[in-house]
Amino acid sequence: MHVAIPLYHRFTALDAVGPYTVLAYAPGWTVTFVAAEPGPVTDDRGSLVLTATASYDDLPRPDVVVVPGGPGTMDVLSDQALIEWIGQAHEHTRWTTSVCSGSLLLGAAGLLRGMRATSHWAILDLLRKFDAEPVSDRVVIEGKVVTAAGVSSGIDMALTLLARATDVETAQAVQLAIEYDPQPPFNAGSPKTAPEGTAERALSIIT
Amino acid sequence: MHVAIPLYHRFTALDAVGPYTVLAYAPGWTVTFVAAEPGPVTDDRGSLVLTATASYDDLPRPDVVVVPGGPGTMDVLSDQALIEWIGQAHEHTRWTTSVCSGSLLLGAAGLLRGMRATSHWAILDLLRKFDAEPVSDRVVIEGKVVTAAGVSSGIDMALTLLARATDVETAQAVQLAIEYDPQPPFNAGSPKTAPEGTAERALSIIT
Repeated sequence: MHVAIPLYHRFTALDAVGPYTVLAYAPGWTVTFVAAEPGPVTDDRGSLVLTATASYDDLPRPDVVVVPGGPGTMDVLSDQALIEWIGQAHEHTRWTTSVCSGSLLLGAAGLLRGMRATSHWAILDLLRKFDAEPVSDRVVIEGKVVTAAGVSSGIDMALTLLARATDVETAQAVQLAIEYDPQPPFNAGSPKTAPEGTAERALSIIT
Repeated sequence: MHVAIPLYHRFTALDAVGPYTVLAYAPGWTVTFVAAEPGPVTDDRGSLVLTATASYDDLPRPDVVVVPGGPGTMDVLSDQALIEWIGQAHEHTRWTTSVCSGSLLLGAAGLLRGMRATSHWAILDLLRKFDAEPVSDRVVIEGKVVTAAGVSSGIDMALTLLARATDVETAQAVQLAIEYDPQPPFNAGSPKTAPEGTAERALSIIT
């Protein structure tokens, strides 16, 4: 199974590297980071540089697409090369997926019309612009389209995807290989549970 | 606060990028990936290339060190430049930390003698070679030395560290910013809970 993860300026690193690590550990799976042209791509903090090793043209028909999000998403909603690549790749994928604001890019490619989808809690309602129905679940599956909530949710999404694409035993083996037995020190990872004032502080970080 | 994350050939991407994302989102914190020389470093799957933007010499006194693990750890246990940098940086750090087999590198630098420490479940007992006491906790804090269990545990470690280094409210804001409300699809992330046979399959993935 060949997975492509498109990178763009000001993507959020964990959006891409969470699912990458899960899927690249799956036996027989390979993952390639792609961009308009191969080369370095800088993240949203300006301090992490990941290399895209292939261009969109090099990889027109991946089996799986994982579109990461990040503050840079808003800038690439009008990036025709990226949006067209997503739309054309989707015609042949087995799974088309996103993490965080990456779902807006699936929307811009016209893939979410009339469908349930999720995204980062802070921008969930923007999905309506693409005729999608926002759902505040961690992972939303609609046929072969799988959207995940903010940033770290890509790990849960990739494990869920892997179980469906292969089998439960393989997904569990990867989960144990990456010791994914999460023990967050606080119950603050969702706007539903975070203490009062946390959402405002979080928004000041990500905007 | 300035964080340095050393990279080496065949590191595990999520070991580095989990804590990176948490700490780089903290207001006023910056994170730099370092190596013997600046340049691209390839991960354990051979498909992810992260750029080290500074050399060890460029950054001798970071406030925080986060040493990632990966299959490549065994090769760099005898890398004097890396081990000496860790040892010398530690003399001035506020926190010296590791994820996964990165704790073996702290051990090789002589930082774990007589101390409790953790690592990936598959290699936990190797800590004894460095006179450390292996503990199968997700995050182990001994003074200013913080070790984390396998791969994904770096996220929990970094949030725990951030709360101690700043305050609980800041760590909670970052947790919400990255929507870290984990919902693993299986209860297989620890050898204590994974179904029979999962450990053998996981070991065949990571070795």
